Amino acid sequence: MQLEVSHLNEECGVFGVWGTPDAAFLTYTGLFSLQHRGQEGAGITINNNGQLRTKRDLGLLNDVFNAVELEKLQGQAAIGHVRYSTAGSNLLENIQPLPFNFSDTQFALAHNGNLTNAQTIRQTLESRGAIYQSSSDSENLMHLIRLSKETTLDEQIKDALRQIKGGFAYLLLTKDSLYAALDPNGFRPLVVGKLSNGGFVICSETCALSAVGATFLCDVQPGQLLKIDNNGLAISTYTTDTQLAICSMEFIYFARPDSDIYGVNVHSARKRMGALLAKEHPVKADMVIGVPNSSLSAAMGYAQESGLPYEMGLVKNQYSGRTFIQPTKKLREQGVNMKLSAVRGVVAGKRVVLVDDSIVRGTTSRRIVKLLKDAGAAEVHLRIASPELKYPCFYGIDIQHASELIAANQTLTEMCQTFSSDSLGFLSVPSLIQAVGLETGAPNGSLCVAYFDGNYPTPLYDYQKQYNEEQNKLHHRDVITGVTMS
Amino acid sequence: MQLEVSHLNEECGVFGVWGTPDAAFLTYTGLFSLQHRGQEGAGITINNNGQLRTKRDLGLLNDVFNAVELEKLQGQAAIGHVRYSTAGSNLLENIQPLPFNFSDTQFALAHNGNLTNAQTIRQTLESRGAIYQSSSDSENLMHLIRLSKETTLDEQIKDALRQIKGGFAYLLLTKDSLYAALDPNGFRPLVVGKLSNGGFVICSETCALSAVGATFLCDVQPGQLLKIDNNGLAISTYTTDTQLAICSMEFIYFARPDSDIYGVNVHSARKRMGALLAKEHPVKADMVIGVPNSSLSAAMGYAQESGLPYEMGLVKNQYSGRTFIQPTKKLREQGVNMKLSAVRGVVAGKRVVLVDDSIVRGTTSRRIVKLLKDAGAAEVHLRIASPELKYPCFYGIDIQHASELIAANQTLTEMCQTFSSDSLGFLSVPSLIQAVGLETGAPNGSLCVAYFDGNYPTPLYDYQKQYNEEQNKLHHRDVITGVTMS
Amino acid sequence: MQLEVSHLNEECGVFGVWGTPDAAFLTYTGLFSLQHRGQEGAGITINNNGQLRTKRDLGLLNDVFNAVELEKLQGQAAIGHVRYSTAGSNLLENIQPLPFNFSDTQFALAHNGNLTNAQTIRQTLESRGAIYQSSSDSENLMHLIRLSKETTLDEQIKDALRQIKGGFAYLLLTKDSLYAALDPNGFRPLVVGKLSNGGFVICSETCALSAVGATFLCDVQPGQLLKIDNNGLAISTYTTDTQLAICSMEFIYFARPDSDIYGVNVHSARKRMGALLAKEHPVKADMVIGVPNSSLSAAMGYAQESGLPYEMGLVKNQYSGRTFIQPTKKLREQGVNMKLSAVRGVVAGKRVVLVDDSIVRGTTSRRIVKLLKDAGAAEVHLRIASPELKYPCFYGIDIQHASELIAANQTLTEMCQTFSSDSLGFLSVPSLIQAVGLETGAPNGSLCVAYFDGNYPTPLYDYQKQYNEEQNKLHHRDVITGVTMS
Amino acid sequence: MQLEVSHLNEECGVFGVWGTPDAAFLTYTGLFSLQHRGQEGAGITINNNGQLRTKRDLGLLNDVFNAVELEKLQGQAAIGHVRYSTAGSNLLENIQPLPFNFSDTQFALAHNGNLTNAQTIRQTLESRGAIYQSSSDSENLMHLIRLSKETTLDEQIKDALRQIKGGFAYLLLTKDSLYAALDPNGFRPLVVGKLSNGGFVICSETCALSAVGATFLCDVQPGQLLKIDNNGLAISTYTTDTQLAICSMEFIYFARPDSDIYGVNVHSARKRMGALLAKEHPVKADMVIGVPNSSLSAAMGYAQESGLPYEMGLVKNQYSGRTFIQPTKKLREQGVNMKLSAVRGVVAGKRVVLVDDSIVRGTTSRRIVKLLKDAGAAEVHLRIASPELKYPCFYGIDIQHASELIAANQTLTEMCQTFSSDSLGFLSVPSLIQAVGLETGAPNGSLCVAYFDGNYPTPLYDYQKQYNEEQNKLHHRDVITGVTMS
Repeated sequence: MQLEVSHLNEECGVFGVWGTPDAAFLTYTGLFSLQHRGQEGAGITINNNGQLRTKRDLGLLNDVFNAVELEKLQGQAAIGHVRYSTAGSNLLENIQPLPFNFSDTQFALAHNGNLTNAQTIRQTLESRGAIYQSSSDSENLMHLIRLSKETTLDEQIKDALRQIKGGFAYLLLTKDSLYAALDPNGFRPLVVGKLSNGGFVICSETCALSAVGATFLCDVQPGQLLKIDNNGLAISTYTTDTQLAICSMEFIYFARPDSDIYGVNVHSARKRMGALLAKEHPVKADMVIGVPNSSLSAAMGYAQESGLPYEMGLVKNQYSGRTFIQPTKKLREQGVNMKLSAVRGVVAGKRVVLVDDSIVRGTTSRRIVKLLKDAGAAEVHLRIASPELKYPCFYGIDIQHASELIAANQTLTEMCQTFSSDSLGFLSVPSLIQAVGLETGAPNGSLCVAYFDGNYPTPLYDYQKQYNEEQNKLHHRDVITGVTMS
Repeated sequence: MQLEVSHLNEECGVFGVWGTPDAAFLTYTGLFSLQHRGQEGAGITINNNGQLRTKRDLGLLNDVFNAVELEKLQGQAAIGHVRYSTAGSNLLENIQPLPFNFSDTQFALAHNGNLTNAQTIRQTLESRGAIYQSSSDSENLMHLIRLSKETTLDEQIKDALRQIKGGFAYLLLTKDSLYAALDPNGFRPLVVGKLSNGGFVICSETCALSAVGATFLCDVQPGQLLKIDNNGLAISTYTTDTQLAICSMEFIYFARPDSDIYGVNVHSARKRMGALLAKEHPVKADMVIGVPNSSLSAAMGYAQESGLPYEMGLVKNQYSGRTFIQPTKKLREQGVNMKLSAVRGVVAGKRVVLVDDSIVRGTTSRRIVKLLKDAGAAEVHLRIASPELKYPCFYGIDIQHASELIAANQTLTEMCQTFSSDSLGFLSVPSLIQAVGLETGAPNGSLCVAYFDGNYPTPLYDYQKQYNEEQNKLHHRDVITGVTMS
Repeated sequence: MQLEVSHLNEECGVFGVWGTPDAAFLTYTGLFSLQHRGQEGAGITINNNGQLRTKRDLGLLNDVFNAVELEKLQGQAAIGHVRYSTAGSNLLENIQPLPFNFSDTQFALAHNGNLTNAQTIRQTLESRGAIYQSSSDSENLMHLIRLSKETTLDEQIKDALRQIKGGFAYLLLTKDSLYAALDPNGFRPLVVGKLSNGGFVICSETCALSAVGATFLCDVQPGQLLKIDNNGLAISTYTTDTQLAICSMEFIYFARPDSDIYGVNVHSARKRMGALLAKEHPVKADMVIGVPNSSLSAAMGYAQESGLPYEMGLVKNQYSGRTFIQPTKKLREQGVNMKLSAVRGVVAGKRVVLVDDSIVRGTTSRRIVKLLKDAGAAEVHLRIASPELKYPCFYGIDIQHASELIAANQTLTEMCQTFSSDSLGFLSVPSLIQAVGLETGAPNGSLCVAYFDGNYPTPLYDYQKQYNEEQNKLHHRDVITGVTMS
Repeated sequence: MQLEVSHLNEECGVFGVWGTPDAAFLTYTGLFSLQHRGQEGAGITINNNGQLRTKRDLGLLNDVFNAVELEKLQGQAAIGHVRYSTAGSNLLENIQPLPFNFSDTQFALAHNGNLTNAQTIRQTLESRGAIYQSSSDSENLMHLIRLSKETTLDEQIKDALRQIKGGFAYLLLTKDSLYAALDPNGFRPLVVGKLSNGGFVICSETCALSAVGATFLCDVQPGQLLKIDNNGLAISTYTTDTQLAICSMEFIYFARPDSDIYGVNVHSARKRMGALLAKEHPVKADMVIGVPNSSLSAAMGYAQESGLPYEMGLVKNQYSGRTFIQPTKKLREQGVNMKLSAVRGVVAGKRVVLVDDSIVRGTTSRRIVKLLKDAGAAEVHLRIASPELKYPCFYGIDIQHASELIAANQTLTEMCQTFSSDSLGFLSVPSLIQAVGLETGAPNGSLCVAYFDGNYPTPLYDYQKQYNEEQNKLHHRDVITGVTMS
């Protein structure tokens, strides 16, 4: 159910390449395969023999780039970015890569993640006269680099990286090198690949490596700074105070199923989530169906584990991955539906297990249950292949407030009533951890599960006060993860 | 694998509505759900209190219509069209609905199908001074109606319909009525639905009824002429010399899985094709995967019947349902792939049954087998959930020449070598007929299977000579439907 | 004051070229120099080795063609058209050249003018089954050509030309030739030129010959049919019943000042109109100013004859020759003016003779007098360098109804009050004839002056009835041509 | 001859308004009337109850704003900018107004002019960590304001203004006020007007006051800082070390003829330049013509003084004030001309005085002389209504290098040969000063004439070194201002 306003929004995908004459087209291709990570803006900075040039705009990648303009971006290295932006900040100035032109040099910056001390840094620097070109927190890094007292660019970057907190996968393109850096918890994924012609690629997901024909080399590790230039790849660390806590929502929902994260295939992890969900919340039914496309893997796992037939009960319009004119509320109530439709011939008269990957506000779930019942489904048992989302995220997912999360505001029984489902079950946190199966020794199976249990792996800095105030207003009453309506 | 240049192309989808203030938006919504039937042009004619106005252009529906322009199309009835056009004819003049403005009246015409005697009619009429606005054969009907000596429009239309041959589902909008007509063999699907406010909908597939919240009323039958006006729906016949022979490729590939055709759900029919394919061509393997999205139903059926796990071995970019910049041949050879990717974590080291719905030129099949083997698949067993395409179609599918069809030019063994697959199997025609299971008593289970066996249900008229010449050059050698490479 | 909605609108400009590899660009250039003849649509048909291809759309030439699309139009011959269209008919279908594709051949048609028997022909042909692609009367010629019983295309065209009445300058492009035809009265201008490489050009005005570097060869004469092919230029006549009556508004307003019509330079003719206007309506004043740009020539002539200084009292925004966002009525009343401004430093406290080329509705005149008085002009004496427009035109100017013409509805004194001018004078018809000075022996100095005196040089055919009805409602009271307010 | 690449380019026009509900539309209208000052970018910042929002883009005003987008800019105050940009800097980032978003406030900046110490300031600030969003020198002011140690915004602005050198007319929009500032020499024009509803307007030229229906209030004086807020207009000075030296090219070429600068009407000043030119360089001839549109005033003055007839010998395409597709060099040599054409009927066989406002590279002059001679002119006497441009400008005109100026590189005789003119004469500096006639007591009649005589009214700061090097390579040999070829 990607692209739903009511679903989760990632804060970006990044792609960088060094050392190939097709740098712009490969970046375009890589971003196209990362389009699911951000649909509201896109940009590419090309490095042509030391000259940097940026083209960026609001819209999907293909709204921003046409063949003529892409052709103009000749160069040997590039970074690119696809962006999701929150309502208030969809300004051109915030579209990345952010270009920086100094009297003597040029930089371009692309960032996936969210900083937790951005406001403090910005206010401090502004009070000293600093001027920011964007309202994005990504820009802080550039200011800190320029203000660093270190003497080499490498050390200035490390100095700056040590001052920012939160989740970040940064790409920094300069006249003669491409840098990449990951936060100390590795909240966001970042991988390195190699082109057959010797060039290097650094990007958010391995699916982008496949898209450009690159071979996987390694995952970037928490606290690392990578530098690629004409001498090759050099890996160093800017801090050793690290602990892997990769965002579990990448496995649950964000990443493409063909991507691998720290060696774990995303589709396979989702299948295991579905299988464990079937163990935790079995139900008598005639079939299992998934919400296309993100929940199909989990639905397969549930079907296989439960022995129930896996079926196609919902069809998604293949052309909905782009702008279309929305029906009015009145027309929606008359049954007009542009995007999803139930397969009446499959579900009519049947008891259906409906698997979805996660629930945010709950509006989509209610709509889909209604769609199936209108198409004649006898029973709809809703199974969610992740735990209840109850807490905000400050590391790069657009859940700013618990008040937006239905599971933070309703009990299981209330939710089941809201959705008009016949039963409801969520995956437990331990099962999620087991399904991913990352064995690095870090807590929670090396995952960040803070939006499920409220235990954040880092201090919250600028967000602590707001978080405390909001939590005081909420009651998290459930200790169970499933309910059946009688 | 829709949208592939090398795959089959439908010649259109039609949608008409009568008697609702939201006529334009419902037509837009209906066409959006029929976009898979034609991506190269779209148009809507609105009837506003007897005034007809047409907006049409090249491109996807959302390239042609924006909110401002759609808003302008106020009216109570409308017809719309999405078009696939062959390379040489992508002119604006050919985009439908075709508008006709006479001194005293207005018409608009939308057509899905292909006429077999269009050239003869056109040449005859042109020699008498007729001028065609388009190069499309659809326009013939309008000329014949205007030339008819009958005295009422109803009879003029019937007179004209009796003169045209081939496959056609026509919508004709006038100042005070909406007509729909189906050819005597019912080659193309056409269904009627009802809106909750009393209005009527006629369109190519039931998925469009669902999309606009309409209830299914009936399938239009071969030889029928329907007329909808403010008095309601009237059904008559223009000929009784009919015999249902609906295009089997609608079940195999064209129609959306959630659509029902003559009561048969398309997804379910495809599952049965897959299951019978498993019976006809079993193989020892580790998993079954389908080519997304059109072959997933057949793959589910194969998996269920064979007992092998159904897996997600290929992922399709969700944003590829729109224009994107194509990589150069050189980049494609370096492994750049914008649209499909193999899930290495799933297929590596495994014996894979790859189910595809059909094979036209064979280029896609070769590419996908290579993709899977490059991702480490140990074996790839290609299973096609339809018989071998060996003959051209003249009723509305864009296969003009047998020379374009690999199965008309290579033996099974040669094809298997071409694809580098480890074995290859096609569904037999009897199994196809059984899988669809239409029981109207007409030959071939009421299906047209002429592209598989060369037995056309009608004379070929203008195409007979070309067909004979081409067939004399070809040798159809296979009597078997499967082969395994040793 | 071109482009004013309230001013006159020409019905088109045409340009054709044969025998040069730059056919498309020269046509583009020629149309650019003819843009003043039509701003609402443009198109080019290219002939590439016998293949005709048309690109046309609504908008200014530069909205329709960009460099990429122009580049695609490779060929050795072309015709083009810029169109003014009346409100109700701004449909893409009416934009010319009109393309015609027959089973065995192709044509394209471009037309400047208006037919007076178009409705009769169309109804007759439609009743026999003919279908028109456009609502434009231009299309009649093609139908008549195709219906002609003559045996050669040349004779078919002549046969057709003899059946149409009214004003027309036609260009017809075929696979192997370029035809041009002018009506028996030569209402619209049409000239022939030669390129240095031997190619031929036929177009509406000599300014287009200059623009493409062609040398003037001859004016096309009434009743002529020209044919250009690879053998060169052949001139024949389709009728000898001719009498030159070229539209006097071409000299007064439409044509560009650098164009020559039948050997008379347009700017020079306008200067003579201004000079004779000064003789007929002298006035004591401090300066003479013209309404930019079309009235500057006449103002120069008035100033020179009267001995008064020629001044720049009005400035026109140079960027107004394109679409801009119109101010609301409220803002206009507050003095917001996008297009024209008075030069306060020049006119303040002065007695001004304001020369305009013609008056249609009178709204512009009222606005400009107010502009000057608001800028401090002591007196404004309005002098019109043409007679009073009192009758409609049926040969190609968009004055359909006398009710739209202020001079048909108000006396001189009433108009002078309406405009708040201190005096008002129009040029007399004899002076107009003298100023142009065409000496071919035809009546009215070979000019059509029917909109001034109601004496039409041809029967009005389809328009006669409407004309009679409208005239019965009007009273043309003035016999004088000037008035001064006391 | 505006818009010619080879002509001079102004560096911008500014418009600001405070206290009216139509702030955006008035700014749009004002900028439309200032479009001649910059055609490569445009932008508007609106202040809606303290919220600032900027829309800006490359292109003409009407490419940047459509009715829908303009409608969105609701607010009570606004500033706008039209920009000319040098080739290397046509980046979106440089289009003004420059928006600045701080944690606690917002600003927007629009600037006409050029700073002479921008590089030094920027390098100094960058070395302390400052980051500039643009490559434009305009941005310096914002950094200096934010770095100022003063305690009120008014004083911070004055502090900053005292640190920048060169030519500047600045508009600064804040949440609750609109500031305007002019450099100590008043190099660029800036005027204040009042709307009938009490609102204020500040803009580059009085033609923009007329366009929006505002009444002229005063010229901004050198060294002034104006502040407009809901309390009205307050004028103060940030320095008293001032001396008026307004750019004489504003009178000669840049400003619109209907504008008044320091009380002098621009058209009238140009007429006087033409008249004095006739006195200094009389010639026997048949007529005087001007290069449209900028030289028509001077040509009128020359004609009046000399007693020769003023004629229209050149016509400019009225649609050339926008993008059009350029002909190739080959086509230009064949005589293809999109923009200017000679009126053969006027100039053939005649001795022509051709008046142009100024000469930069000389390519245009050569082209126009050839155009006239090709059209049959017997003699062409070139008269330039300004002195020889021999030195670069550093205060806001885009003449960076004397090497670009033909008069800095050729003698009068050489130029006359280059142009193929029969004689050549320039206006003297004293006559220019007399023609403008500003009597404030400042040197050179309060004009900057540095590009004519090399005497700059200020130090050149960052440009001094480059200037010295270039001057050493050039020889300025002429002491006379006219020459006749024998």
